[in-house]
Amino acid sequence: MLRQGSLKRHVGPRIAGVRLAATAAGIRYQGRDDLVLLELPSGAQTCAVLTTNAFCAAPVQLTRTHLRRGQPRYLLINAGNANAGTGARGLADAETCCKALASAADCAPEQVLPFSTGVIGEYLPVQRVAGALPRLLDELREDGWNAAARAIMTTDTRPKTAAVRCDLGGAEASVVGMAKGAGMIRPDMATMLAFVATDAAVRSVLLNELLRAAVADTFNAISVDGDTSTNDACVLCAAGTLPGGSVVTGSAAAAALAKAVHEVCERLATAIVRDGEGATKLVTIEVVEAGTAAEARAVADSIAHSPLVKTALFASDPNWGRILAAVGRAGVCALDIARVRIWLDDALIASGGCRDPGYTEAAGRAVMARDAFRIRVALGRGHAKARVITCDLSYDYVRINAEYRT
Amino acid sequence: MLRQGSLKRHVGPRIAGVRLAATAAGIRYQGRDDLVLLELPSGAQTCAVLTTNAFCAAPVQLTRTHLRRGQPRYLLINAGNANAGTGARGLADAETCCKALASAADCAPEQVLPFSTGVIGEYLPVQRVAGALPRLLDELREDGWNAAARAIMTTDTRPKTAAVRCDLGGAEASVVGMAKGAGMIRPDMATMLAFVATDAAVRSVLLNELLRAAVADTFNAISVDGDTSTNDACVLCAAGTLPGGSVVTGSAAAAALAKAVHEVCERLATAIVRDGEGATKLVTIEVVEAGTAAEARAVADSIAHSPLVKTALFASDPNWGRILAAVGRAGVCALDIARVRIWLDDALIASGGCRDPGYTEAAGRAVMARDAFRIRVALGRGHAKARVITCDLSYDYVRINAEYRT
Repeated sequence: MLRQGSLKRHVGPRIAGVRLAATAAGIRYQGRDDLVLLELPSGAQTCAVLTTNAFCAAPVQLTRTHLRRGQPRYLLINAGNANAGTGARGLADAETCCKALASAADCAPEQVLPFSTGVIGEYLPVQRVAGALPRLLDELREDGWNAAARAIMTTDTRPKTAAVRCDLGGAEASVVGMAKGAGMIRPDMATMLAFVATDAAVRSVLLNELLRAAVADTFNAISVDGDTSTNDACVLCAAGTLPGGSVVTGSAAAAALAKAVHEVCERLATAIVRDGEGATKLVTIEVVEAGTAAEARAVADSIAHSPLVKTALFASDPNWGRILAAVGRAGVCALDIARVRIWLDDALIASGGCRDPGYTEAAGRAVMARDAFRIRVALGRGHAKARVITCDLSYDYVRINAEYRT
Repeated sequence: MLRQGSLKRHVGPRIAGVRLAATAAGIRYQGRDDLVLLELPSGAQTCAVLTTNAFCAAPVQLTRTHLRRGQPRYLLINAGNANAGTGARGLADAETCCKALASAADCAPEQVLPFSTGVIGEYLPVQRVAGALPRLLDELREDGWNAAARAIMTTDTRPKTAAVRCDLGGAEASVVGMAKGAGMIRPDMATMLAFVATDAAVRSVLLNELLRAAVADTFNAISVDGDTSTNDACVLCAAGTLPGGSVVTGSAAAAALAKAVHEVCERLATAIVRDGEGATKLVTIEVVEAGTAAEARAVADSIAHSPLVKTALFASDPNWGRILAAVGRAGVCALDIARVRIWLDDALIASGGCRDPGYTEAAGRAVMARDAFRIRVALGRGHAKARVITCDLSYDYVRINAEYRT
């Protein structure tokens, strides 16, 4: 018993001063947690990257406003209902939840950031959310990350957490994150939520830089710039509970922390792709030798978003013609196809505008049979590059999304 | 027997002076025709809209060159092999076919336009093509359109032809067309070939105008500008066999002919969507009240290309939230979501940034149950509009494209 109790108290990662709780509020699902509260210590710094979708959800609008006004103390996150496409009433509903929590926890409503994910266009059951707040406040605990990660899932098949430690020169800092998201034919289609925290003390400007740098190369490398769902959000909190002063911009500690935040975001982003709806393969698209980064990204996106390429990936069919066609239609100005080379992992499949003379179908099939591999395209135009992580398109993608509301 | 013979001589549409033949050359398929020859009379005018894909196929490159040089007398079209991604040898192969036909038919090689559709990256079996040419030349007939339309199919489930007559003020002209294409999650992914001919006499400049105007609103309204496959082509031929002079730009006859060409292209484009791989529904996306035509088109494309919207269409699920999210991420600058309205046929589903008060799920389901309906979006910003025709995303789309080469 002692041992079991001991285990229970120390399950999963933790950030000193950051406490979480999850509960079943009955928002949409039966028999599972669907509401999460994350508490930050006084003095914590928080920043976020939020969706640019014009139809952004009520909680996103409110989070944007609250982030401008005050230092957040609570993140309130629900699954099952996106509170998007709900107009003025949706906004009022989100405000009501923030006020109810502020009242119960003795903080200002502006210190609560609301997040929602799930079905669009239905009103949030505010009473059920409010009714669950007292028990959430009672059950806050530092090792609540795993339970919280499970409670924010929608079509995800598994919870996603990541934890990394880093040496800030004297003190060892922790970075812990959780994420949900599994709509992966294009990641802009389904809500992606990610919450990352560190115990390091980081001022607002640097914290923003850390988050934006990490997101650009991780969560945004599984997405299209500006192409986001109504609810996408990625939040980074610095609890400031680690002994020692604030991490200073340009210092070795800042670099170490940046690396750790990047690593956590990378692991979570990869976990989202691996859990892609119906996905059976994790495919990294790398484009190199591009004239500009934008051109590299356009080619990577053209491949990553091609349903014909993605169904071929699902079939483990090294149909390189479809990759070639996707490169060709990416809109690269005056592309010299004779200079383009395409690899599946280390197998050179196309060069000189056609199948490489050394390529064999067997070599292509061997790579395609792997559950994770790389499509690499060299454009022969310059030194810019881009990377996008994607997955295949399977029957299950159609099933999951055809049956989502039924 | 007489009657049957008589029927056989008069099956399907025809254009005086335009003859076609189809045969089984064994290029890829067994037991079906896969090679078509279309002969134009001396003096016919021909123009084409060809793919802008950088990896454009060898036959497309050659057709572009030949169109610049001479008056085409023959179109040679094969299914089963795209002759794309085949480099210098692919180009030589296409040239060999043109030369073989020129020699057998006593014309210049530049008077032959080659077209191919099918698998990318395999070499064309030139000997089989060349070997079939004598019997194609022997079997040319004016009523060969239906057999030809069948022979150019790849994943199509049915042949596509259309015929319209129009009054040119004294003489009655005919416009006949055939098309193939069924890759319809995005039409840029699969080869679309269309061949349209009229017996009217039309000079080159006007003929180009007629074709480009018709394509913009039909074949390009099931596609994205510049987003084309390696082999896409649409050809318009004016045989000039109709008695009377040339149709003059700006005349009533030109307007009547433009309308007829448009009508044929519209019917063929719609037939391609209806035959979309795995498609169960024909959905027209109309965007109105946009600030610019480009912005209208961006919103229409965002909806038409959303796999989440398309799987909801397949499920007959009026999940208007997904439509709303697709509108929101189309990149329209400073979109006022309070002014946006969305209809399913005549049912207003969203207004004021949320579900319309008068909307019922039953009304949405009733529309979604139809096999053809319209999604209409009013942006409340101006008077520009756009229309895109699309279909749903089903299990069969995945099956067809996962199994295509196997």
